[in-house]
Amino acid sequence: MTSAPTTRTAPPSTPLTDLAWLGSHAAARLPRDVRLAAGGPLVASIEAEISRLRTLAEGAAGALTLRDQATAREEGVAPAVLEELSESGVEAYALRADGDAASIIGDGRGLLHGFYAVVLGLAGPGSGDWRVHAPAQAIRMLDHWDNMTVHPVMGQVERGYAGGSLFFEDGELREDLTRVEHYARLLAAVGINRVAVNNVNVHAHEATLLTTRVDQVARLAEIFRAQGISVLLSVSFASPVLLGGLETSDPLDAEVQRWWRAAADAVYDRIPDFGGFVIKADSEGQPGPFAYGRDHADGANLLARALAPHGGEVFWRAFVYNHHQDWRDRSTDRARAAHDHFAPLDGRFDDNVIVQVKHGPLDFQTREAVSPVIGAMPRTRLAVELQVTQEYTGQQKHLCYLAPWWRENLAFPFGPREGRGQDSRTVAQLVAGSGQRLGGVVAVSNVGADEFWTGHPLAQANLFALGRLAWDPELSSERILRERSEATFGTDPLVSEVLHEMLAESWQLYESYTAPLGVGFMVRPGHHYGPDVDGYEYTPWGTYHFADRDGIGVDRTVATGTGFAGLYPEPWASRYESVATCPDELLLFFHHVPYTHRLHSGKTVIQHIYDSRADGYEQVLSLRPRWEELAGKVPPALHARVTTLLQEQERSAEEWRDQLRTYFFRASGIPDETGRPIY
Amino acid sequence: MTSAPTTRTAPPSTPLTDLAWLGSHAAARLPRDVRLAAGGPLVASIEAEISRLRTLAEGAAGALTLRDQATAREEGVAPAVLEELSESGVEAYALRADGDAASIIGDGRGLLHGFYAVVLGLAGPGSGDWRVHAPAQAIRMLDHWDNMTVHPVMGQVERGYAGGSLFFEDGELREDLTRVEHYARLLAAVGINRVAVNNVNVHAHEATLLTTRVDQVARLAEIFRAQGISVLLSVSFASPVLLGGLETSDPLDAEVQRWWRAAADAVYDRIPDFGGFVIKADSEGQPGPFAYGRDHADGANLLARALAPHGGEVFWRAFVYNHHQDWRDRSTDRARAAHDHFAPLDGRFDDNVIVQVKHGPLDFQTREAVSPVIGAMPRTRLAVELQVTQEYTGQQKHLCYLAPWWRENLAFPFGPREGRGQDSRTVAQLVAGSGQRLGGVVAVSNVGADEFWTGHPLAQANLFALGRLAWDPELSSERILRERSEATFGTDPLVSEVLHEMLAESWQLYESYTAPLGVGFMVRPGHHYGPDVDGYEYTPWGTYHFADRDGIGVDRTVATGTGFAGLYPEPWASRYESVATCPDELLLFFHHVPYTHRLHSGKTVIQHIYDSRADGYEQVLSLRPRWEELAGKVPPALHARVTTLLQEQERSAEEWRDQLRTYFFRASGIPDETGRPIY
Repeated sequence: MTSAPTTRTAPPSTPLTDLAWLGSHAAARLPRDVRLAAGGPLVASIEAEISRLRTLAEGAAGALTLRDQATAREEGVAPAVLEELSESGVEAYALRADGDAASIIGDGRGLLHGFYAVVLGLAGPGSGDWRVHAPAQAIRMLDHWDNMTVHPVMGQVERGYAGGSLFFEDGELREDLTRVEHYARLLAAVGINRVAVNNVNVHAHEATLLTTRVDQVARLAEIFRAQGISVLLSVSFASPVLLGGLETSDPLDAEVQRWWRAAADAVYDRIPDFGGFVIKADSEGQPGPFAYGRDHADGANLLARALAPHGGEVFWRAFVYNHHQDWRDRSTDRARAAHDHFAPLDGRFDDNVIVQVKHGPLDFQTREAVSPVIGAMPRTRLAVELQVTQEYTGQQKHLCYLAPWWRENLAFPFGPREGRGQDSRTVAQLVAGSGQRLGGVVAVSNVGADEFWTGHPLAQANLFALGRLAWDPELSSERILRERSEATFGTDPLVSEVLHEMLAESWQLYESYTAPLGVGFMVRPGHHYGPDVDGYEYTPWGTYHFADRDGIGVDRTVATGTGFAGLYPEPWASRYESVATCPDELLLFFHHVPYTHRLHSGKTVIQHIYDSRADGYEQVLSLRPRWEELAGKVPPALHARVTTLLQEQERSAEEWRDQLRTYFFRASGIPDETGRPIY
Repeated sequence: MTSAPTTRTAPPSTPLTDLAWLGSHAAARLPRDVRLAAGGPLVASIEAEISRLRTLAEGAAGALTLRDQATAREEGVAPAVLEELSESGVEAYALRADGDAASIIGDGRGLLHGFYAVVLGLAGPGSGDWRVHAPAQAIRMLDHWDNMTVHPVMGQVERGYAGGSLFFEDGELREDLTRVEHYARLLAAVGINRVAVNNVNVHAHEATLLTTRVDQVARLAEIFRAQGISVLLSVSFASPVLLGGLETSDPLDAEVQRWWRAAADAVYDRIPDFGGFVIKADSEGQPGPFAYGRDHADGANLLARALAPHGGEVFWRAFVYNHHQDWRDRSTDRARAAHDHFAPLDGRFDDNVIVQVKHGPLDFQTREAVSPVIGAMPRTRLAVELQVTQEYTGQQKHLCYLAPWWRENLAFPFGPREGRGQDSRTVAQLVAGSGQRLGGVVAVSNVGADEFWTGHPLAQANLFALGRLAWDPELSSERILRERSEATFGTDPLVSEVLHEMLAESWQLYESYTAPLGVGFMVRPGHHYGPDVDGYEYTPWGTYHFADRDGIGVDRTVATGTGFAGLYPEPWASRYESVATCPDELLLFFHHVPYTHRLHSGKTVIQHIYDSRADGYEQVLSLRPRWEELAGKVPPALHARVTTLLQEQERSAEEWRDQLRTYFFRASGIPDETGRPIY
C-alpha cells in the first residue's frame, strides 16, 4: 500500500468576503451621530473604522460621543469617574449609556476598546451611570503557528485547519495584506493586545525574521499598531549559532549575550514598540539551555536582558517534557514534567519574563486536569496558554465551542498551599498577577487564509470568545456566544437560537463521543484527527491509557501511582487522590479502574463508554436539520460550508462511536446493556 | 506535539566503492587465459568486462573458451550438444568444465550468462561433460519504484531503504551514470533480463518519461542493453488525458487507442528493443479502466495492441482491491480481491499481456498464503511478483534473507482443480508457462544510491538470490547464499560460516518476533516500520487481525468466514478450511481461534506468541558477537555499517517483543508460563 506524494502550495490571497463580527450588522449598530473629541495615534484608526462601517450600513438611531480624558475633564465629567478611569490602567475606558445615547471616555487603546464595545454591543444595557471597564488580564495574546513555507504534510500553519498563513506566502510576507488589516480590527474589537506572528517551532527560514527579514515583521507591526496591538516573534534559542555564526548559544557566554542584545537593538530600531520574544526551548527537539547544562531561568533571562532596555518581554513556554519516553517505564509521567522543570525555578525569572503554561499538564486535550504549575509559581509572572486552533477538539471540522472549557479552567480555584501562605485563587487570578507582576492569557490562533478565517465558519466563535474571556473571565460562555452571533449575523431570534443550540454545549458533545473520562488522546498519531485508541499507546510520547481486559486509566495517585495528584494544594490533592472523590470527568486521568467501576453518575465505566458514544452520535445527527433552518438567513457560501462540515462531523462521530465501542467490547467482553450494535 | 518539517534532497552521485559480487573476488576467479571466439553485440561487453576484472585481480589458473554456436559448430563440438542448446532458447548456454579448463558456447545473452556463471562460480563443479543451462523463467524482471523527485516524507524511492534513486536526481536523469553501468552488470550476472525504471505509482512528473522525457529512458536502455537487459516503463493509465490532452482514457475509444499507438511508436523510434509497460491500474488511487465501465482485460489489451507491432509487452498488475474498506464490514476480504477481479478474465488477455500477481493475496507479508490467482488463470501469461525491498520484512535494517520464503512460494504445488483439468503444478511452473505463453518472476528492487547499494550491505544477498531463483527456482537458498558470499567476500571459511549462520534462517527469525502465525501487518501505519498491533485494525486498508480478549485471527473459511479458503484447488481448500489441518504458520491467516487453542507444535497460541517473541529477541542478540568475528575480514566501512544496523535490529526486536507480549497479555490476561517479564 502506498501514499501518493502530496503537493501543497500556499493559496493566493483570498478576497475579503467574510467580515466576521465587523460587517454590516456591526455597522448597523454604530450610531449615526458620532462625535469624536480626542487626540492620540489611534484616533485616526477610529475615524477610519467609522468611515469603513458607514459604507456597510446606515447606522443606528442615537448618538455616540468619544472623548479622551483631557477633553472629558475640560467638559466637566465627574472627577470620580475620571479618577477611577485613570487608576484602571491604560486600556480602560468609561462608558455611559442612556437610551440610544452613549458616551465613551478613554485614552489611546482605552478609547479604541470602548469604541468597539459599542459597535459590538459588548457593554450590556445602559443604566445612565458611568461605568469603568478594564481588562482582567494585562496580557491577551494570540500565538500564530505560521510557517513561511508550506510543508507537504503539515501544511503551512502547524496544527492549522484554515488554509495557509494569513501573513506569509512562498517564503515571504504576502504582498496583499488587506486581510491582515481586517484581522487586526477583528482582534482589537475583542480586546487582543499582542500577536506573535510565527510558529514556536522555528525552522531555519523563519529564524531569519529576527534578522535579515525583520522588515517583514515591521510591516506587520505597522498594521497591528494601528489597532493598538503589539507584535512578537517566536525565536530559536540557537539563533546565535544559526544566524550569528557563533560556536555556542550558551546563555552564560558573554558573546552570546552580546549577540542577543545587538539582535534586540536592531529589531527595536525598526519596531520601537516591538512586543518581545516567544520561545519554545528544550522541547520536542527545539534547542534550549539544557545543551549547555543551564536551566530555563538562565535561558529566559538571557533573552529578557536583551529586551529589557526596550521594554520588551519574553514569553518562555513551560511545555517541556521528555518526548522519548519508554512506554515500559511506568515511573515517568509526562503530566509531571512542566512542574518538575519549572516549579523549582520560581523566583529566578527576571521581571520581564512571562512563563507561558499550557492550561493542562498534557497537551490541550478535550478534558484534562488543570496544570499544577499555575499554582506553584507565586513569584513568577505567568500566562495560561489556551488553544483556539482545534488540534485535539475536532480540527475545525467538528463543532466545538471551547468557551465553557476555557472558563472552567480559568475559574479553577487553587486552594492555599501549606508553607506558601497563599489564599485560594483561581487560575484567572493567579495568571492576572498584581502590581507590576502582571500576566495573562495566551492562545494559539485558529485563523488562516481561508475565506471564512477559521475553516469552519462557526469556529470564529472560539476566536471571539478567547478575546472576551481574556478581557473578563467571568463572562458566561452563553453571553459571549450571543454577542458573537448578533455582531456577525444580526439579531434574528431564530439565528441566535439555532446557533445557541448548536454551539453552547458542543464541547461537551465532542467529549461525549471521543476519549472518555479524562483519559485523553486516542487520536491518530501525527495528524491527531479521528480515533485510534492505541495510536499513542506504545510510543515515546508519554500519553498512555493502559487499557487491558480488566480496566483502564492512568494511576497518578501518590499512594500507588506517579504521584502527580500530590502536586496540587489541598483540597485538590486529596480529592484527586481518592477514587471516591475524584470527579467522574477526570477519573481516568487520575486512576486506573476496572470497567465495572461505578461512576458518581451511577453507571459503570464500560456502560458510560458505550452510552455516551452512542448518545453523542445521535445528538450530532440532530445538528444538520437545525442548521438547515438557517438557509437563506446566513450567507449561502457560509451555509454550504457548514453543511459540508456537519456531514464530516457525522461521519467522524460515527467512526469514533464504533471504534471505541468495539475496542472496549473486544477488551472487556461486557455487552452493552442497551443492546445497541457493536461491530 | 509536533513533527518538524523534513527536507530531503536526492544525494549526489555516490562513488562506486562497493563492487558487490563483481569485485576482486570475482575477478580472481576469471581464468587468466581467455579465448573469446564469438560475434554479436554483447561480445564487446564481455571484452570490456574481462578488461575491467583484470584491473581488479590477476585471475585464476586455467583457461576459458567462449564461443558462439556457429564457431563451436565449425570447431566440431558434438551436434547433440548444439542441438540441445539451440532448443533451449536464446538465453541458454552450454558449459563444459574439466579441471581448471572451462568452455562456454552460446549466442548473445546466452554467452553472457555463461561468462558470468564462470566468473561467479555458479555452474557448480565440472564433470568434463557438456551441460546445457537455461533459465527456468523467461521473464526475470526487476521493478524500480523510483521517483524522479524526492518526497519529503516518502523519500525518492517508494518503499526504498537504500537512499535516493540510482537513476534520477532533482527531477531528471543523473548526469553520472557510472553506478547504473555497474548495476546493470550486477543484474546481468545473476540473470535478470528486464528492468522497469520508475515507480508504478506514476506521478505527473514521471508520466512524462513516456513522452517528453523519453530520451532519458533511452540513455538507461543503452546502458542496460550492453548487459542484455531490456528496459520498461511504468505508465499511467490516464496518460491520454494527462499527457495527450484528450478528454478520456477510455480503452474502447478510438482516439485513445490511436494516442497509445502513437506514443508506443515514438518510444520504439528511440528504443528499438524497448521492453514495454508496467501498469498499476484502479489500485490505491491510480487511474484505470473502471472509470469508464471497462474491465482490466479491456485496459491491458489497449496497451498491448499499441506495443504488439514492436514486440513489446504489458505487465498488468493484479494488485487491485478496495482500499476504502469499512472495518465494520466483515464480508469484504482484501485477500479475495485479486481473484475476484482477475480469475473471471482468464483467456481474455492478449498474447503480449502478462498479468503480474503478488505472491500472496495481501501484500508482501513476512508470511501469508500463496495467491490463489496463480492457480486460477491457466489461459493467461502470468508473472509472480516478489518484493526484494524489505517493506514488511525489516526495511533493510533487520537481517532478513528472503530466499527461503520465495522458494517456499515458488514451490507451492497447486493441485488439480475440478473442471479445469490441470495437473498439480508449482507456482514456478505455472508462471513459467509453456510454448509461446511464457511468464516468469518480477520483483521490486531493493537498490538505491546508497554506497552499499541496498542500505544494509547484507541485503545484497536478496538481490542476488532473486536473480538466481528466477533462473532456477530449485536452487537451495543455502547454495545461493554461499555463491553470493564467495563472489563478494571470497572463500575464507570463517566468512562463509558466519554469513551462513547470520542469514540462512534470518527470515524465520524475523517472523518469530513480529506478527505471529500468518496474521500479518501489526506495523506502524504509513511507513510500516516497527510494531503497532492495532495500527491498521480500524482503518480502510482491509488488513485486520480481530484480536479481542478471547482470541485472534481472520476467519477465511467457507463455512463461517469470507470463503477465501475455497478459492484454492484441493487438497488446499480442505486443508486450509479446517483448523485441524491448517498449517500452524498460517493458522491466523485462515482462522480466528482462542488464545488457548493448541498448535500442532503442542503450544497454545498465547504461549507461542510469548515464547517466540522472547526467544527471537534472544537470538537477535547472538548476531552481533558473530559479526564481530569478521572485523578485518570484510571492508571496514561495510563492517561498521552492519554493526550499526545490528544494534538497530536489537532495539527494534526488543520493541516488537515487548509490545506484542504486553498487548496480548493485556488482552488475554493469561500469564507467560515461563515467567519472563511483561510490561
